[in-house]
Amino acid sequence: MAGNSIGQLFRVTTFGESHGPAIGGVVDGCPPGVALTEADIQKQLERRRPGASRYTTARREADQVRILSGVFEGVTTGTPIGLLIENQDQRSQDYSNIKDLYRPGHADFTYDAKYGRRDYRGGGRSSARETAVRVAAGAIAMQVLASKGVTIRAGMVQMGPICVSELDWDAVSENEFFFADNTQVEALDRCIRDLKKAGDSVGAKIRVEAHGMMAGLGEPVFDRLDADLAHSLMSINAVKAVAIGDGFDVVTQKGSEHRDAITPAGFSSNHAGGVLGGISTGQPLTAEIALKPTSSIGISGATIDNKGQSQQVVTKGRHDPCVGIRAVPIAEAMMAITVLDHYLRQRAQNAEVTAPVQFHE
Amino acid sequence: MAGNSIGQLFRVTTFGESHGPAIGGVVDGCPPGVALTEADIQKQLERRRPGASRYTTARREADQVRILSGVFEGVTTGTPIGLLIENQDQRSQDYSNIKDLYRPGHADFTYDAKYGRRDYRGGGRSSARETAVRVAAGAIAMQVLASKGVTIRAGMVQMGPICVSELDWDAVSENEFFFADNTQVEALDRCIRDLKKAGDSVGAKIRVEAHGMMAGLGEPVFDRLDADLAHSLMSINAVKAVAIGDGFDVVTQKGSEHRDAITPAGFSSNHAGGVLGGISTGQPLTAEIALKPTSSIGISGATIDNKGQSQQVVTKGRHDPCVGIRAVPIAEAMMAITVLDHYLRQRAQNAEVTAPVQFHE
Amino acid sequence: MAGNSIGQLFRVTTFGESHGPAIGGVVDGCPPGVALTEADIQKQLERRRPGASRYTTARREADQVRILSGVFEGVTTGTPIGLLIENQDQRSQDYSNIKDLYRPGHADFTYDAKYGRRDYRGGGRSSARETAVRVAAGAIAMQVLASKGVTIRAGMVQMGPICVSELDWDAVSENEFFFADNTQVEALDRCIRDLKKAGDSVGAKIRVEAHGMMAGLGEPVFDRLDADLAHSLMSINAVKAVAIGDGFDVVTQKGSEHRDAITPAGFSSNHAGGVLGGISTGQPLTAEIALKPTSSIGISGATIDNKGQSQQVVTKGRHDPCVGIRAVPIAEAMMAITVLDHYLRQRAQNAEVTAPVQFHE
Amino acid sequence: MAGNSIGQLFRVTTFGESHGPAIGGVVDGCPPGVALTEADIQKQLERRRPGASRYTTARREADQVRILSGVFEGVTTGTPIGLLIENQDQRSQDYSNIKDLYRPGHADFTYDAKYGRRDYRGGGRSSARETAVRVAAGAIAMQVLASKGVTIRAGMVQMGPICVSELDWDAVSENEFFFADNTQVEALDRCIRDLKKAGDSVGAKIRVEAHGMMAGLGEPVFDRLDADLAHSLMSINAVKAVAIGDGFDVVTQKGSEHRDAITPAGFSSNHAGGVLGGISTGQPLTAEIALKPTSSIGISGATIDNKGQSQQVVTKGRHDPCVGIRAVPIAEAMMAITVLDHYLRQRAQNAEVTAPVQFHE
Repeated sequence: MAGNSIGQLFRVTTFGESHGPAIGGVVDGCPPGVALTEADIQKQLERRRPGASRYTTARREADQVRILSGVFEGVTTGTPIGLLIENQDQRSQDYSNIKDLYRPGHADFTYDAKYGRRDYRGGGRSSARETAVRVAAGAIAMQVLASKGVTIRAGMVQMGPICVSELDWDAVSENEFFFADNTQVEALDRCIRDLKKAGDSVGAKIRVEAHGMMAGLGEPVFDRLDADLAHSLMSINAVKAVAIGDGFDVVTQKGSEHRDAITPAGFSSNHAGGVLGGISTGQPLTAEIALKPTSSIGISGATIDNKGQSQQVVTKGRHDPCVGIRAVPIAEAMMAITVLDHYLRQRAQNAEVTAPVQFHE
Repeated sequence: MAGNSIGQLFRVTTFGESHGPAIGGVVDGCPPGVALTEADIQKQLERRRPGASRYTTARREADQVRILSGVFEGVTTGTPIGLLIENQDQRSQDYSNIKDLYRPGHADFTYDAKYGRRDYRGGGRSSARETAVRVAAGAIAMQVLASKGVTIRAGMVQMGPICVSELDWDAVSENEFFFADNTQVEALDRCIRDLKKAGDSVGAKIRVEAHGMMAGLGEPVFDRLDADLAHSLMSINAVKAVAIGDGFDVVTQKGSEHRDAITPAGFSSNHAGGVLGGISTGQPLTAEIALKPTSSIGISGATIDNKGQSQQVVTKGRHDPCVGIRAVPIAEAMMAITVLDHYLRQRAQNAEVTAPVQFHE
Repeated sequence: MAGNSIGQLFRVTTFGESHGPAIGGVVDGCPPGVALTEADIQKQLERRRPGASRYTTARREADQVRILSGVFEGVTTGTPIGLLIENQDQRSQDYSNIKDLYRPGHADFTYDAKYGRRDYRGGGRSSARETAVRVAAGAIAMQVLASKGVTIRAGMVQMGPICVSELDWDAVSENEFFFADNTQVEALDRCIRDLKKAGDSVGAKIRVEAHGMMAGLGEPVFDRLDADLAHSLMSINAVKAVAIGDGFDVVTQKGSEHRDAITPAGFSSNHAGGVLGGISTGQPLTAEIALKPTSSIGISGATIDNKGQSQQVVTKGRHDPCVGIRAVPIAEAMMAITVLDHYLRQRAQNAEVTAPVQFHE
Repeated sequence: MAGNSIGQLFRVTTFGESHGPAIGGVVDGCPPGVALTEADIQKQLERRRPGASRYTTARREADQVRILSGVFEGVTTGTPIGLLIENQDQRSQDYSNIKDLYRPGHADFTYDAKYGRRDYRGGGRSSARETAVRVAAGAIAMQVLASKGVTIRAGMVQMGPICVSELDWDAVSENEFFFADNTQVEALDRCIRDLKKAGDSVGAKIRVEAHGMMAGLGEPVFDRLDADLAHSLMSINAVKAVAIGDGFDVVTQKGSEHRDAITPAGFSSNHAGGVLGGISTGQPLTAEIALKPTSSIGISGATIDNKGQSQQVVTKGRHDPCVGIRAVPIAEAMMAITVLDHYLRQRAQNAEVTAPVQFHE
């Protein structure tokens, strides 16, 4: 099955290459009756937009989205929503030198191995440019979720060695790193400057949460909420690990320590990250992802060309020293898509089920 | 969409509850012409079987699998393979006391929230008993993969605080913990005894790898090989995190350090874990998963019943102090299912593609 | 994608060969809270059972179904329902003579072309024996639909040249042909006797309807209710044509004649068969299917063997002179599965939609 | 699952309303390495284009397609192909009068019943305008199939009472009716003139065939080639019936008459329409479909408005007196999509199977 769609009932399909004429997609299964304008989507796109921050790529894209269908008189109709973003600042000449090269750490080699050819300009389909469409689709999902009381938020919690000391969600919108701790901004700024000087890059950790969750979302045994979330978050470019709740910390935990007690007022803790047995508990859904440092760096690296000959490559072009920064709105988008998809799946199968217990908090 | 199937072209569907009459499943899309007997499957089931080790649950199940279809004269026919394992040692009386209770850390509450009812005996559908069918289906996948030169292996690399000092794959089949380091067996044994005495449990980390991989598997942008692997591994009971290659370590890595150089003899390292841009490189595919400590422990815990009243619960029944032990063959099964599924998907779309470069090692 | 499943949210997967140990399947996505016993399913199986009528095959099968999961204390739990029917009267010796032959009109040649091998005993997977599982799954769907006020019924309306003169639904349960006209029973009886004497077979037309339909089911533009129904009905063995509403008669109709007027009391006619634009109108959903005469006949036919050599073949074994008879409960099952699937899909996407108009009949 | 996609491995998703800014779609799963230009697609679009014939709607649309992705240097890359056709001649004012009316025979009532609202301009999503994208996607499928030796063709064989006397495939491209018999063109012309004068419309029958088929395509038991074809053909606007091979004629056939004998030179006849047991035989795949007369006619009809009040409606706007004419290229497109999808599915599962017999014709 072709792999450019995600979600079963809220289904997002994307198309487009970094340096083609346009990128876009189709959102199929959006419930009717939801107020939606291009501005609602644009707001989220703005957060991911290249050229918007001095800490990210210098490529300038207006990322102006057009809604081509599925919305009538400002309200969704239930029919598929066509989305289009024309590419503008393409500078294809930057890439001709890597036409026959397999840049280390990039998908050049694997795309050739898979398809026997590739659009090499700016990474073609493997470019993070495609994620703009995810953000657009995620904005639609968030609009629907908001009407059900569910909100999604993400923030960077670590960049290289710099960690959040205390999680401060307000900070995320107050600095250009989407970092959940304003006290580290100066250190982050210095870090990026140093990386740029060295022509290097660094990894990052993003935390993403859904609040106002309803209990009962997730379809065991395979399409558990956490399993589908792992899929959607791992599908983001450069992500190498996904953790739910306490993640890898559970390895050293005892059962008596990990399990979240339940009281008449609700759960006492949230080691589980809001999922038990693959089904949401109603607590916040929490996940963390690790993003690798971009391989597009100014330091020369050993590789081969498509004749199998040794080559050295230095990536020119315009790249982010930390791709994790712009991944924040993308992570929100992917969680929103997955949660909404499961909300609809739950509604299909279990429309008549009522909550077993009312917590009195 | 109902969630009890995984894979697109090699598609596994399971059914069955812990204390129902039987568990089973259907493997649809197995290529024809593969030699397959019940013994091939039984061998893998044996490794996961309850009661097989003194370190795991005392429940005794023969776990005798029957192949009901899809195999004729010892060879697969391409039609769906029906699998059946009758349940034997059910002791349903053990569970009547938790009929109205929501055990903390278990799926009792969430199943009720989702479906409005549940088979409470032994966890019902949420029990790890279902994973026997995964192991059976995985054994079929491994049989097919073996004919293509791909082998899968898994081992425990950490249990609570006890880590592998040096990875020794031979050790995995030599100790009852599937631990990849025989020098730690004594420590592990002591740890399990202490846990049993304390009525507690502990988490674990499992490493799983595919060798002999072909380059080109994975369907960007959403059905990337790593994303689908994250889905399938996270769908295993108790798994809370999935890492590909260096996993969360990439957060502190530099780009110059992380990217794997390519030479005419092949890749120089494998930080990527065998996947670039969501497509296999041909290197070993490597992943690690974290399993939480089981919540079925002898220490009393606070919870509520289905009237919302405070209760204390002590799990009796027969449980593993470390569910990670038996997860080893399950992790192999899930990786095998995902890799074979992507092998078939690649064959559909890109049957005529030939490798871009022949490495001369 | 492996093809042994149907439905998206109410998903039925079947397995099993005519002469294997058992046939069975999995029903995934059945809503929880529905009363269901093996007797409910058995009742429908009885109508399709081989050996139940003197007009159908002499093969004797108890067709005793076991529910292996998904039902607890007589009520569905929302988890997958495993179904099993052991094969009994297999007489495999009947088939050894056709091991290397491609019987004309059968799937012998095409299964070999597709899979490179086949279980030749009794047609293997291509046998109508598999449809017992469909009837079982359909019985579950009907149970759910009944609770929503939807009922399904089918009857034979033509066998060879013998047509229903006036449609009489009560007759269907009163004769062994499921024929919707008792006045033709004698003619049908004579026809079958003549066919048996001649060693020949004949085709049939079945009409199938859903009553008590809700408006709004169907997912344009591809998964229209009528398109999905065409898929599910055409997937029945021997079906060669599917008509919705007036079917092929629309070719000669005028627009002024075909379109169904709407009044405050409802639609004035039902040329459309209960679907407009791929979405149900709330009127009865009506379809007709054509079943070919079975190719298993006693008259010698020209064919080849798997060496490409000319051969003559006479089908022995035990076969129905008119496979259309037993197709009646199968057609009901397939319509039930499709309608319920779309009911769930509608509930997912449009749960908050209310009917635009209340007809006052 | 949202219903705007078709095909599993060659997957087509469409979006767009009749009077929105644009229609378009995504073709995911097109194999790489296929030469493809906008002109290849335009050629097929031209055949369906409104305003191209004096016998069809007077709406003028350039139907200029843009390929937005998935093609690089004139060759497909294996990544999704984005397609866009801007709408031009929209005349929305024509439709304001039917804003609150449910036109009989149209999807106005059912869209409101399903979604609670609709884009009423020109039928919105239910308009046949969407089929332009199907034709574009089908043109891509045909391009791939042609490289495998498979060709698709369709023609009208009946319009109202006027039948083809002898099937003449050359005629199809020689008259504006795509009619497979030039001797009837005058009668067809007169028929359309009379219908226009009367403000009425008429139904049609289309025949569609695939030649150069390979044996072995189709995925029993549900995703049979004929069942999937029934789905895809029935999903075309106005189609009310689908027949494979002899279709409804099989009802009166004897088994001895229907079954196609096999000789060392191949099949002696093709009553089956190229499918046995749901799998292609290698013979031509043949199907016929019935299209209802359009309900958009100038004769006043009884209906209700969205308050449930009786109304009379006369459809103004620009409509085809016989929608069957333009359905010819659409039928070709749908068959091409389905055949290619099954070709890829067969390749995935059974890549190593070789034909059982070589016919020596």
